Amino acid sequence: LDYQHVQVPFEITLWIMLASLAKIGFHLYNKLPSVVPESCLLIFVGLIMGGIIYGLNDRSPPVMDSDIFFLYLLPPIVLDAGYFMPSRPFFENIGTILLYAVVGTIWNVFGIGFSLYGICQVKAFRLQDVSLLHNLLFGSLIAAVDPVAVLAVFEEIHVNEKLHILVFGESLLNDAVTVVLYKLFRSFCEMPAIKSVDVFAGVGKFFVVGLGGVLVGLSFGFTAAFTTRFTKDIRVIEPLFVFLYSYLSYLTAEMFHLSGIVAIISCAMGMKRYVEANISLKSHTTVKYFMKMWSSVSDTLIFIFLGVSTIGENHEWNWPYICFTVIFCLIWRALGVLVLTFFVNRFHVNTITSKDQFIIAYGGLRGAICFSLVFLLPDFHRKKLFIAATTVVILFTVFIQGMTIRPLVDLLAVKRKRESAPTVGEQIHIRFLDHLLAGIEDISGHWGQYYWKDKLEYFNSKYLQKILLREYDQPKSSIVLLYEKLERKHAMELAQAGQLGHGPAHPSFLSSDRTVITDQKLEDTLNPAVLDNIQEILARNLYRIRRTGPAYNRHTLPGDSEPAERAKEILILRHKSL
Amino acid sequence: LDYQHVQVPFEITLWIMLASLAKIGFHLYNKLPSVVPESCLLIFVGLIMGGIIYGLNDRSPPVMDSDIFFLYLLPPIVLDAGYFMPSRPFFENIGTILLYAVVGTIWNVFGIGFSLYGICQVKAFRLQDVSLLHNLLFGSLIAAVDPVAVLAVFEEIHVNEKLHILVFGESLLNDAVTVVLYKLFRSFCEMPAIKSVDVFAGVGKFFVVGLGGVLVGLSFGFTAAFTTRFTKDIRVIEPLFVFLYSYLSYLTAEMFHLSGIVAIISCAMGMKRYVEANISLKSHTTVKYFMKMWSSVSDTLIFIFLGVSTIGENHEWNWPYICFTVIFCLIWRALGVLVLTFFVNRFHVNTITSKDQFIIAYGGLRGAICFSLVFLLPDFHRKKLFIAATTVVILFTVFIQGMTIRPLVDLLAVKRKRESAPTVGEQIHIRFLDHLLAGIEDISGHWGQYYWKDKLEYFNSKYLQKILLREYDQPKSSIVLLYEKLERKHAMELAQAGQLGHGPAHPSFLSSDRTVITDQKLEDTLNPAVLDNIQEILARNLYRIRRTGPAYNRHTLPGDSEPAERAKEILILRHKSL
Repeated sequence: LDYQHVQVPFEITLWIMLASLAKIGFHLYNKLPSVVPESCLLIFVGLIMGGIIYGLNDRSPPVMDSDIFFLYLLPPIVLDAGYFMPSRPFFENIGTILLYAVVGTIWNVFGIGFSLYGICQVKAFRLQDVSLLHNLLFGSLIAAVDPVAVLAVFEEIHVNEKLHILVFGESLLNDAVTVVLYKLFRSFCEMPAIKSVDVFAGVGKFFVVGLGGVLVGLSFGFTAAFTTRFTKDIRVIEPLFVFLYSYLSYLTAEMFHLSGIVAIISCAMGMKRYVEANISLKSHTTVKYFMKMWSSVSDTLIFIFLGVSTIGENHEWNWPYICFTVIFCLIWRALGVLVLTFFVNRFHVNTITSKDQFIIAYGGLRGAICFSLVFLLPDFHRKKLFIAATTVVILFTVFIQGMTIRPLVDLLAVKRKRESAPTVGEQIHIRFLDHLLAGIEDISGHWGQYYWKDKLEYFNSKYLQKILLREYDQPKSSIVLLYEKLERKHAMELAQAGQLGHGPAHPSFLSSDRTVITDQKLEDTLNPAVLDNIQEILARNLYRIRRTGPAYNRHTLPGDSEPAERAKEILILRHKSL
Repeated sequence: LDYQHVQVPFEITLWIMLASLAKIGFHLYNKLPSVVPESCLLIFVGLIMGGIIYGLNDRSPPVMDSDIFFLYLLPPIVLDAGYFMPSRPFFENIGTILLYAVVGTIWNVFGIGFSLYGICQVKAFRLQDVSLLHNLLFGSLIAAVDPVAVLAVFEEIHVNEKLHILVFGESLLNDAVTVVLYKLFRSFCEMPAIKSVDVFAGVGKFFVVGLGGVLVGLSFGFTAAFTTRFTKDIRVIEPLFVFLYSYLSYLTAEMFHLSGIVAIISCAMGMKRYVEANISLKSHTTVKYFMKMWSSVSDTLIFIFLGVSTIGENHEWNWPYICFTVIFCLIWRALGVLVLTFFVNRFHVNTITSKDQFIIAYGGLRGAICFSLVFLLPDFHRKKLFIAATTVVILFTVFIQGMTIRPLVDLLAVKRKRESAPTVGEQIHIRFLDHLLAGIEDISGHWGQYYWKDKLEYFNSKYLQKILLREYDQPKSSIVLLYEKLERKHAMELAQAGQLGHGPAHPSFLSSDRTVITDQKLEDTLNPAVLDNIQEILARNLYRIRRTGPAYNRHTLPGDSEPAERAKEILILRHKSL
């Protein structure tokens, strides 16, 4: 037996296997996941495992290594989040999100830090040796809302898109602030005296860390898009580039002490559109599948490790400090959201309701990032107290808040996500309004979001697409794309139906109504009621749309394209005959 | 700048990136890959990079670590090879393959070892300090044909299926022999005296190492199949299990000093059938894609590293030893193939032609496995000579043999692989003959391959499928499956054609003939001429086949299924109207 030799890959594989099996286990009982969030169950599994390890070895189980967390477990989750980020609501609310992420986080850090310092002054609590700087350092790591925890809980409660993007966007973008403040206070702790220059340098760093991350991410994203132009002959390695470049952007940002999370998100958002157009359909399925797979495994591992690391002798218990930390975390977040939303609502027509504000404040879950940061603290005599307080805050937010947020959302009747995708009519109207508003802003001289969006779109189609897309063609209208998607799905389900014909009798077969069979595959993305209508209208009219190519071309005679036209006509007729 | 922190993942990512970019680069010029095998080009890139590193640092560039090779680079390639192994020709020729792999490899090891020992006795060569045992040890590592190198070259020359499986199967299965002989001679080298017991123990080990590998692999494979029964609610982690279990089988086998390659191949071949039936179509696409991706990246990395590691000061040059090694490798392999094939041909009707024998002998390429093994040798004063000889043999076989094998195959007019998949008629006949031969063997009392195949199939459908498959149903006839595949492809290409209608004019559109459009997607797997015929015949007759379910059921009334039947009828009519 030669265990030493294969130990590292063997144990990694076993941990991943454990995580995957745990996931399967939960989903075997359909009722469990609907009551308790998966994150809680996983922490629970971790606690049990930690207890077993502790009981068997009689020493603390291994703690999740901060390096492993930041270098290997976090990037897949953030990449997945960035790649599947709904870009429209994100950019529509970018101002509010940034306000929450930057001002809100600073507010929380200083609020929690100073009020905990106040608690430390009470003699009865025996905490007088914790300095203001240490309290601020602790505040900087405990203030940040955790994207992993937020994602795990909000994915299951289906609140409306705006509310979701506000909480989730904040949790992602506050990374830049957290990195700066945490490193600033850490270096202050080690400095003998703090000059005012250092404070100003810290303020300047915000912009460097945040904008630097965006720049690094975008440059890697565009390089990735450019690279996928040349993969026509070796389709199998296409997915690789998506992962390699985004991971490189994260690592490069971390290397220069920029915000890795911001970098990987910009990279994913920047490349998505071009990569999707360049790579084959199968490659894209693989990319999406693997992203989801990796992120869900990472997520599972993080929560299990959180549970395992909780057990042990790393904690120093001090009731007042820990209780007041939980209380201050709740109070300062609530206050911050109230004050900031007050200002946001004054400048917006589409205001944030008080119910939404409550959910934003209540959804401020803490997670593995705080946990990893507290273990990265330099050694000082009260570190174990900080670890204990962080653990309690994480468990409190994940368990108590995470488990009660769903009933609360039901109780308050918070506006939910609409289940159906926008209809073609809606899409046309949205597009039309965008153009209209861009025009109005242009005339009125107000450079608002529509103006910039229009300019960006122009820049994109004029320059970027030409460089980054493989076969640059007239950009297809999104309606034509939707029609193509419908047709593809329809064709697939026709084949599927033939296939089902001799499998076990499928429920949809019991009704011979065609609509039922048709929408069986489509109901996840399209409102079934309008589906047939859309298809008929499109099939009747799309032929004209398709013909709107350039009518005159210097290099081809008009007659040249006739056979192709005839073939088209035949195909479309055949489609209609369906 | 904090490079230390991210060094490990950053450098790994950069190496993979380099490999991927090198692959893209070669395929940009279409003519290059058709003249020079990719493996040669990659070694060349590695040589240049090694030269640069050597020139800049003035010391030997880093050598490929044997642990990295065996634990991380080799498994993906072997997994890919096992998963996509054509099982029919493999099992049909298993006897011949095993003969080449076991007897042939032993023949080569002792042949090369003893004759090199003879060379060492010549005083003029100054090699008298190399003992017989060291020569045999060297023979055991240099004798093994390398699956990675064979795959890289044979994938491009498209010889007939039998010839391919003979060389490739041998290169995979000889791992068990190599492992045993290498470890045996290594431990003999360290022993003061060798007893005859040790030699017998070595012979016994063959069976333990080989059969143990098969057992470990099959048990992990069946566990994997069993696990994928329960992944219905979380499709995204399905692909993970395929990779995790096969990797675990490899690591477990390595841990117990069994043959990891044999284990992972048995695992992949064992689970493939059941996993494919259990997981969703998208998961399966992901599995196939990722396997190909990983194996091609691993393959690229191995050849680049081979090139890099060649440069440096690890070599001790001795003309006679190195030249005679190359010559003996060629001679003993040629002799071995001739002698073994003589015996094989006496017992088979379908003989191996002398052209095929030549290609088998000539295709015995050496590669990274030899290279990693020679670096794993215990330190002794002539190790550098062995390293030099191994490097020369690898470069000779990969460059000279790899580059000339394609012209030789053309020159000898070796039978090529048939480009089209078997037609339905052929499939029916093959199936019929299998049953017939199994019956004949059963009656005559001869327990040949058809008898065992039949028994295995019976065991599979009677027990294994019930345990391992998610929804156990009557096994579908392969003809029905083929028809389904055709229908799905046809549906897809209909949708595709509608999509192509407003892209740039596609060549296939210029002809309005329907067949051309149809086979555009299918030509890779099906002979276009027979395609339309098959589809028409099947569409006319399949309705009857589909109906052959159980006519009587205790739990349903005959009338129950009528609406479903009607729906089927409608669907089939619609299919026909296409």
